[in-house]
This record gives sequence, structure tokens and C-alpha cells, in this order.
Amino acid sequence: MNELLPEADRKALLPPLAETGWAAVPGEDAIRKIWKFRSFSEAWGFMTRAGLVAEKLNHHPDWTNRYNVVDVTLTTHSAKGLTQLDIDLARAMDRLAPEAEIQRDHGEPVTCLCELHARKA
Amino acid sequence: MNELLPEADRKALLPPLAETGWAAVPGEDAIRKIWKFRSFSEAWGFMTRAGLVAEKLNHHPDWTNRYNVVDVTLTTHSAKGLTQLDIDLARAMDRLAPEAEIQRDHGEPVTCLCELHARKA
Amino acid sequence: MNELLPEADRKALLPPLAETGWAAVPGEDAIRKIWKFRSFSEAWGFMTRAGLVAEKLNHHPDWTNRYNVVDVTLTTHSAKGLTQLDIDLARAMDRLAPEAEIQRDHGEPVTCLCELHARKA
Amino acid sequence: MNELLPEADRKALLPPLAETGWAAVPGEDAIRKIWKFRSFSEAWGFMTRAGLVAEKLNHHPDWTNRYNVVDVTLTTHSAKGLTQLDIDLARAMDRLAPEAEIQRDHGEPVTCLCELHARKA
Repeated sequence: MNELLPEADRKALLPPLAETGWAAVPGEDAIRKIWKFRSFSEAWGFMTRAGLVAEKLNHHPDWTNRYNVVDVTLTTHSAKGLTQLDIDLARAMDRLAPEAEIQRDHGEPVTCLCELHARKA
Repeated sequence: MNELLPEADRKALLPPLAETGWAAVPGEDAIRKIWKFRSFSEAWGFMTRAGLVAEKLNHHPDWTNRYNVVDVTLTTHSAKGLTQLDIDLARAMDRLAPEAEIQRDHGEPVTCLCELHARKA
Repeated sequence: MNELLPEADRKALLPPLAETGWAAVPGEDAIRKIWKFRSFSEAWGFMTRAGLVAEKLNHHPDWTNRYNVVDVTLTTHSAKGLTQLDIDLARAMDRLAPEAEIQRDHGEPVTCLCELHARKA
Repeated sequence: MNELLPEADRKALLPPLAETGWAAVPGEDAIRKIWKFRSFSEAWGFMTRAGLVAEKLNHHPDWTNRYNVVDVTLTTHSAKGLTQLDIDLARAMDRLAPEAEIQRDHGEPVTCLCELHARKA
């Protein structure tokens, strides 16, 4: 589970996440998504349920909360980059808040991660 | 806030709650509703948000959780019966889970509380 | 994990739980413990952390909360009685609230579960 | 509640917070404290209880969680600086985690806020 995602998996798995609002973090092998809920309560309900998933996966997000906003970055520190755990957690978080507003203007498209990684490899 | 609901308020406020699934607790001046969610996670997200409301109102539910089920009884212990606080908390809980399945076969209709109370008065 | 606890395990594992305040539920192969915290907030913090453990174990308590009180019953429904999962969850809950007040007068001592079970076998 | 803290209050109220680990955010009229718990569970229990306080005060922290670390910044956006609400929330958070490890090397001492503000005024 803790191996860096191979290129083929990135090409298959990241674009669908990009469609839901995940984007690459410039300069890092990580993905980020910013949810804008309607209240602290709604944001907190989401975080609580995501926390249950994280604890179950034993893989946790780096996340910031400011009232109704939840800004999430996923990466696997032990692998120094994206692994299947990040894909699983991203998908689970998406399922928990399918109708929330997403702020999309925060980074490069996820697909660029493939290119970034391809250049390194 | 902590005065027993007068009869006129009961007749106006309880029937709409009955429609959403609240029912009288036999022999008590209390209302009860049983939510059946699809998972512990969904039940827990609901309880977490309801907990925020309860703490804000400084009025808390008596509630039982069994995996996906949340069984809530509301009454105001200090007033020995229903007050506006219970109405407010019931409505807030309804707003948090408008689409959840409700188990309705657990008691008498809420409207009977009016009669029960009217007889007492 | 989902097999009923054998007699030898009951004799070894239940008495230490009895010392922390767990007791048998009369007529059922289940254990119960009642925590009395100092506030809803303290009770809720405990339940939140216990919820993380439960979701991780995929084994959940039957529990009731009334302001500062958390009343927990553990059994494994699929096994129709106590299994190792209940022991694990009970121990984890004990670790989360080592200093809370415990209400002990709610049932028979846990040790009777051994005898009860031994008679059945 | 939403007026900027006057100088006299800053001199009285901020130094005790500095002793518990709150420090000024350089260039902003805000305070920050970084808690290092022993696990995600412990961090999350703290955040859950702090969330109850925040919702009750109708004043919420800007906070980041990374596994066991909770990094909190307090300021009152509507007042563009520190108000009594921030003092109240800081004190409440301190009460929730009196024994947690604090990371103190993240900024200037809180006391400098007084001077900073005094120069502006």
C-alpha cells in the first residue's frame, strides 16, 4: 500500500479525481481539494466522517478548517509522494460530500502530476 | 424558555413534528424519533452535528446509538416536560437529516400529547 | 474474531474488566459500563474517540448518552454473545477515560458471566 | 464582543496566554498555538470538544490538523484583529488540553502584540 503510485496508475486514477476538484500541489507529489460548505456545522460533519475513514485506513489528511472551508492535502509522508492510500482517501472524501461547493482555483491540474512524475522517472 | 409548552403551542407545534416522525412517549411528556441511517458513519455525522446544536442551545437529547440507528428522546428535565427548547432541538435535528429513513412504529402519535396534557390541565 | 469467547478466556479476561466497572447484563451474554463525566463536552469527547476505535475494529457499541452520562453495552450480535471484539473494544474505551467516575450499581458482577456460560455449556 | 481589544486588556490578558504557549503571528493581530498530541485520536478528541466551544461562542478557529498536531490561529475577522472572543476561545482550548505537549518555536512572543498595537495606536 505504501509504494509510490506507478505511472500507469496515475494516468488512470488521477484524472477522475481532477474532475471532482482535486489538483496537484505545485512542487510536491500531493493532491489538494478545497471544499466550501454552508456552515461550520456542515464542514465539521464532513470532517468527522472523514476522520473515521482516515483512522480506519490508518492514513490521515493534512487539512485546514476555517469556518465553512475545509482545505485538504493528501500525500503519503512515509513514501514521499502519492500512494494508493491517497487515492482511497480522496475517493472516500468525495463520497462524503458529493454536493458541496468546490473551490477549484488553487493549483495546477492533477494531470500535470503525471508529467511531473514522468520527467522524474 | 424552560416553561412547559402551553396547550395552544402544543396544538400548533407538535403536529408538524409528528409528520416528520416524532411521536409521544407513552406516559411521559416527551417526544421520540428513531432515525435509521445507512451506516455508523452517517449516524455519527448526524449525531456530531446535533451535538453542536445541543451545546449551543444548552439543551441536550437523551439518545441511543446502535450502529446505524439513532433513537432520540426529547424532554426538558428541569421543567418535567416539553418546552420550547425541545421543539427547537427537534426541528434542528430534522433539518440535519431530511432524507434519512425514519422508523415510525414506536409509540403513540404526537397529537395525543395535546390530549394527555389537556386532561391533566 | 467472531467466535464466542471460550470459557478459559472468559475466566482470564472478564475479571480485569469487572475491576474497571464492566458488569454482566442480566439474562444476556453482554457487558455494560456506565461512565459519568463532568459535562456533555467531556462525554462527547470520549464518545468521539471511542467511535474512531469502533469504526477501526468494525465493531460498534450499543450506547446511550444523557448529557454527562455514557451507558455502554457490548456484545457481538452476529455471534449472539461476547467475543474477543468486545474485550478489545472494552479495553480501548477504558484507556480513553481512565479517570472518569463510574457508576457501578447496574447489574451483576461480570464474573457471573463465566458461571452463567459454564452452566449452559 | 467584537471590538478590538484595548491596550490595557492586551497587557493584562495576553501574557498569561503566552505562558501557556500562545504567540503572536508576525504581521497580524492574531495569536497562534501548536499542540502536539500523542495520536490522531487524541488530537481529534480535542478538536471535537473545541468545536463545541466554538459553535457555542459563534467564534471559530482557523486550524490545521496533521495527524497528532493541531495548529490553531485565532483572530476575529470581522474586527480585523484580536477581540475578547479570541481570549475566551484561547482559554477554553487551554482548559481542554492542559497536559498536551506544546511546540513553542513558531513565532514571536505574545507580549510583542501589545507593543505592536501600541505603536499603531
